[in-house]
Amino acid sequence: MPDQINRQVRLKSRPQNVPQAENSDIVSGVCADPRDGQFQVRNEFLSVDPAMRLWVSEAPSYLPPVAINEVMRSFAAGIVTASRHPGYEVGDRVVGMFGWQDFAVSDGSAVQKVRGADLPLSLYLGALGLNGLTAYVGLLDIGDPKPGETVVVSSAAGGVGSCVGQIAKIKGCRSVGITGGHRKVDLCLGEFKYDAAVDYKITADLDSALKEACPRGIDVYFDNTAGAISDAVLRQLNVGGRVICCGRASLPQLYPPPTGPRVEGHLIVKRASMRGFLITDHRQRFDTAVADLEGWVRGGNLRCREDILVGLEQAPGAIAGLYRGDNVGKRVVRVR
Amino acid sequence: MPDQINRQVRLKSRPQNVPQAENSDIVSGVCADPRDGQFQVRNEFLSVDPAMRLWVSEAPSYLPPVAINEVMRSFAAGIVTASRHPGYEVGDRVVGMFGWQDFAVSDGSAVQKVRGADLPLSLYLGALGLNGLTAYVGLLDIGDPKPGETVVVSSAAGGVGSCVGQIAKIKGCRSVGITGGHRKVDLCLGEFKYDAAVDYKITADLDSALKEACPRGIDVYFDNTAGAISDAVLRQLNVGGRVICCGRASLPQLYPPPTGPRVEGHLIVKRASMRGFLITDHRQRFDTAVADLEGWVRGGNLRCREDILVGLEQAPGAIAGLYRGDNVGKRVVRVR
Repeated sequence: MPDQINRQVRLKSRPQNVPQAENSDIVSGVCADPRDGQFQVRNEFLSVDPAMRLWVSEAPSYLPPVAINEVMRSFAAGIVTASRHPGYEVGDRVVGMFGWQDFAVSDGSAVQKVRGADLPLSLYLGALGLNGLTAYVGLLDIGDPKPGETVVVSSAAGGVGSCVGQIAKIKGCRSVGITGGHRKVDLCLGEFKYDAAVDYKITADLDSALKEACPRGIDVYFDNTAGAISDAVLRQLNVGGRVICCGRASLPQLYPPPTGPRVEGHLIVKRASMRGFLITDHRQRFDTAVADLEGWVRGGNLRCREDILVGLEQAPGAIAGLYRGDNVGKRVVRVR
Repeated sequence: MPDQINRQVRLKSRPQNVPQAENSDIVSGVCADPRDGQFQVRNEFLSVDPAMRLWVSEAPSYLPPVAINEVMRSFAAGIVTASRHPGYEVGDRVVGMFGWQDFAVSDGSAVQKVRGADLPLSLYLGALGLNGLTAYVGLLDIGDPKPGETVVVSSAAGGVGSCVGQIAKIKGCRSVGITGGHRKVDLCLGEFKYDAAVDYKITADLDSALKEACPRGIDVYFDNTAGAISDAVLRQLNVGGRVICCGRASLPQLYPPPTGPRVEGHLIVKRASMRGFLITDHRQRFDTAVADLEGWVRGGNLRCREDILVGLEQAPGAIAGLYRGDNVGKRVVRVR
C-alpha cells in the first residue's frame, strides 16, 4: 500500500475560552501503519462537541488538556482500512477517539463497532453515538423520569438536547425545551415534538415563561448550559426534583467558575438533587442503549438533525460556531 | 384538675434574618384541655434548632412561616399529663412539634414515643432525636459512605455534626470536622474522635488545611453551612463524591440566596452529586435508626454534648446564640 497523506488539525495555541479557527493549524504528514494489535481507520466524519472547549483548556478536568502541537482530540466515525488486530477487519465501521485527522491508528481501546448497516454512519457520532448515549443514560439512569412528570431540557435543539426531549416523550413525560431563536423553537415543536419550547433569547421574563410552559412545575432538568437559564429552572423545581448536570454551554468561562445564586436552599427545601456524569463511565450500558436508540430511529420516534460541514478545513472554526449557536442539530465534519 | 398556667413564647415581629430575643414575647394563659382523640403534654425540654431561622422567615420553605403572635414552632420533649387518645397514657414520654410553651395539646401526629427509659429525655431532642436521625439518614442513606472513605462535616461539633462524625467512625471512615474555635476543635478531637479537625476561624488557607486533613481527597461531605466553607470542600471532592445538603448556617441571608462560585463544573468533572433532604420525609427509617443510635449511646460509641439553658425565659434569645456559635453541643431549654 503506498504511503497515504494524513492531514491533521493540530492545536497551535491555547485559547482563552472557546477555541477559534486561529488556534489550530492543518498539517500534512504520512499515515502511520498499524503494528501488531492495531488497526488503521479512515475517518469519514469528525465530531464537533461542546466538550472540546474543556479538552483544550487547562481548567480542572477529567482528562489532561490537549498539548500544543497535538492532534485535536475528538470522536470520529470511519472505516477500517488495514488491520493487524484480531478483532477488526478491513471494512468494519467503527467509532472512537480518532481525532481530527484523515487517518488514525488504534489498538481498539474505547472503540465501538457500528452494528446498524442500514443506518447512516454519521448518526453514530450523534443520536446513535455519544449524544444519544448521553441523553439516554443521563435522562433515564440519572434523572429517572416517571410517566406524567415534566422534563425540561436546555440547548433543547442540540445534539444531546434533541435526544433528551424525544426520549422524555417516548417515556410518557411532558417535555419542555429551552432554546434560542425562532428557527430552533420551530424545530423543537415541529421536529422534536416538545410539548412546549421557551426562547431564552427573546423572553424578557424567563421565570414566567417557564411557569407557563410547566404548569405542574419541573421534575427533571437536563442541564446543558448552567448559568442564568439553570437559575430560572431551579426556582421552579418540584419537591424531589432531579437536575442532571451535563454541560456548561452558557458559561463565559470554565475556570475559575463564574458566580451565581447558591443552590443549597433549593436543594434542601425541595429535597432535590444535582448530579454530574460522564458518559464514558457508563460503557456497560452502551449495548442496550444503542439497541434502543436504533429501534427508535428506525421507528421514527427519534428524529435526528445533522449540521454537516464538508471538508477537513472546516474543522478548526467549527467549535466557535457551535458556541455561537450557528448549528441546527448535531454538528459533524465530513472529511472529504 | 385546676387550670394550669401555660406560658408561651410567641413570635412578635418577623426578624430580618436570625431571630433575636426582641422578636418574641412570653405570654401567659391557661392550658387547654385535651378533647377526644387528643392528649396533653407537659414540655420538659424545648429544642433550639438552626432551622428555626427558616421557619420564622418568609423565604421559600417546606412549611408556611410561623405567623405573628403564633407560638414558636419547635420540637420538644415532655410527659403526657392527660389523655383522651387511645394510644397515649399519662406518664408516657413523648417527642413532637409541641412548640415553645409549658403545655401542648396534640392528636399524636408526628409524635414519637420515647422507648429508652434508661436514657435522659433531653437526648431525644438531640442525638436520639432529630439531630441523630438527621445525621443517620443523611450520612448513611444519602451519603452512602464506604469503609476507608473520607467524610467531611461542617459545624462538626454541633448537634447534627457531632453525630455525623461519630457515625462515620463507626462505619469505618476517616472523619474530618470543620469547626470554629480551639474549644470546639478540642471537643472534635477529644470527645467526638474526629481523625482531624480544621478551625475555619483561624485558618488563612482553608484549601491547604483541608488538603492536609484529607490526604486522599473527600468522598462524602455533610454540609451544615454552605458558603465559603463548602466552596473549599467542593474543590477537593473526589470522583464520585457525594454532598449532603443539610443546612446553611454560614449564609448571611436565606432569600434571595447569596451568590457563590457555580458548582456545575465540580459536579461534571468529578461525576459528583449534591442532594438536599428533610428528615421528616424519612419517618419509615426512624425505628431502625433510633434503635441503632440508642445502642451506640449505651455502648459509648456515640457521645453527646448538650448545652442546656434553664428556664423558658432563655428561649427567645437562644437561636441568636446558636448562630453566634455560643453553644457547645446540642442546645435545649429546660423549661423549669
